[in-house]
Amino acid sequence: MARSLGRLFKGFHRLATLSPLKTLCHPQTGFSVRTTSERTLVQALSLPFFSKPRDFSLPNSSWGPEMMRMYEHYNSQCEVETEGGEKQRGPWRRLPSYNRIIKYATGGLYLSKIIQSKARLFTRNIRDTGAAFEYVLFINSEEKKCVCILQAGHLLEGPPGHVHGGAIATMIDTVLGTHATYLSGPVMTANLNINYRSPIPLGSTVLLESSLDKKEGRKTLLLCKVTSTDGSKLHTETTALFLSISISNLLLGG
Amino acid sequence: MARSLGRLFKGFHRLATLSPLKTLCHPQTGFSVRTTSERTLVQALSLPFFSKPRDFSLPNSSWGPEMMRMYEHYNSQCEVETEGGEKQRGPWRRLPSYNRIIKYATGGLYLSKIIQSKARLFTRNIRDTGAAFEYVLFINSEEKKCVCILQAGHLLEGPPGHVHGGAIATMIDTVLGTHATYLSGPVMTANLNINYRSPIPLGSTVLLESSLDKKEGRKTLLLCKVTSTDGSKLHTETTALFLSISISNLLLGG
Repeated sequence: MARSLGRLFKGFHRLATLSPLKTLCHPQTGFSVRTTSERTLVQALSLPFFSKPRDFSLPNSSWGPEMMRMYEHYNSQCEVETEGGEKQRGPWRRLPSYNRIIKYATGGLYLSKIIQSKARLFTRNIRDTGAAFEYVLFINSEEKKCVCILQAGHLLEGPPGHVHGGAIATMIDTVLGTHATYLSGPVMTANLNINYRSPIPLGSTVLLESSLDKKEGRKTLLLCKVTSTDGSKLHTETTALFLSISISNLLLGG
Repeated sequence: MARSLGRLFKGFHRLATLSPLKTLCHPQTGFSVRTTSERTLVQALSLPFFSKPRDFSLPNSSWGPEMMRMYEHYNSQCEVETEGGEKQRGPWRRLPSYNRIIKYATGGLYLSKIIQSKARLFTRNIRDTGAAFEYVLFINSEEKKCVCILQAGHLLEGPPGHVHGGAIATMIDTVLGTHATYLSGPVMTANLNINYRSPIPLGSTVLLESSLDKKEGRKTLLLCKVTSTDGSKLHTETTALFLSISISNLLLGG
């Protein structure tokens, strides 16, 4: 997949030259990872249009008690108080989430303008809050870990009353892709090897935990478990490989 | 996943006793596979409500020329004419597709009535035709093959202008799950090992081809390639394992 990326991102060039980028972004997640600037990739690439995108990772009325409890558990560790009463950055950081990677990607010859203008991130393509994927990611730089709290809505059905295996794979790809980007810069998914252990009931809240296995050259290998929020029930286990792509490839199609 | 299935399908029991079932159905696909009766699982389990579900595998106005061309290629081989001018069943068969597995699954203790009544199959959860997954499956009993023609809509975005890796995984699980069910009866996904080779542009039509690797006891192992419709471009390669579950487990929760 990574080999074809030069062509894939050629459409970024013109926009990128308008506004020097200071962020990295996994192409399948819609999450941006701040490097030296607070501005996100989405914001930078949306400059000509000035609309502020909605951050889908913040609580809304569809979040149930378990989703809120887990959110508060991690969010409370994003900023901690020192003994002197000062506030400082904690071990975890919440990652914002948007429903577009970029508003105007040319995408080469094959994309119509209708598709370009209407395209939405797969995990954020349903307007009704609570109906599909409700999720938020937190990252821990020191421990090289990333967690995702997922509340699975009723439009994700596979087996009756339970979440589709593809919807689970989608969240795994999203979480691991974000984590790999954070660890290694721009990447593309090369392999997902998912073992399904027990089904996830629709409407339930689960935890996805990603950890670094190893880095070797262009390769970033990650592990992921999907469990109940208390960790007692294992739903899936995954190994994954992501391949780094150069920032010049990403931005200039070189 | 299969181990938890007894509990998962307990809700089927009462309905199943109302109408003896003659069909098998992969829980993640919404496709039913005829065995001795023409009635589908969906129809059988919807008996008390008498509404005829929409078959999503039939052409609609969003299907582009390539989707239609491929559909006609396989559909024309579903019924063939003999030398004597009689029509008879051909090597391929189109599989119908619905947006629910079952209308009233109890799902045990954890599902609210709202979730039960609103639940929709993940691959058919968007009302706008052409916006997400447009697909149709054909099966070839003799060659033990299954193909899926997929037109990927603008709401499946991952990398800008391209299909999300999770959306690809979703279709792979759907196609292989259907094929495994056809070959082995009721199954659950146990493993998906997906290698991503090149991205799929949004709006394009691709072919998913599933073939049987081997059967060993409860295990059905399948292979899947996702390619351009002319087969010249390889997008993904997958191996998958499905585990058989007994029909009594499926229907009676035994």
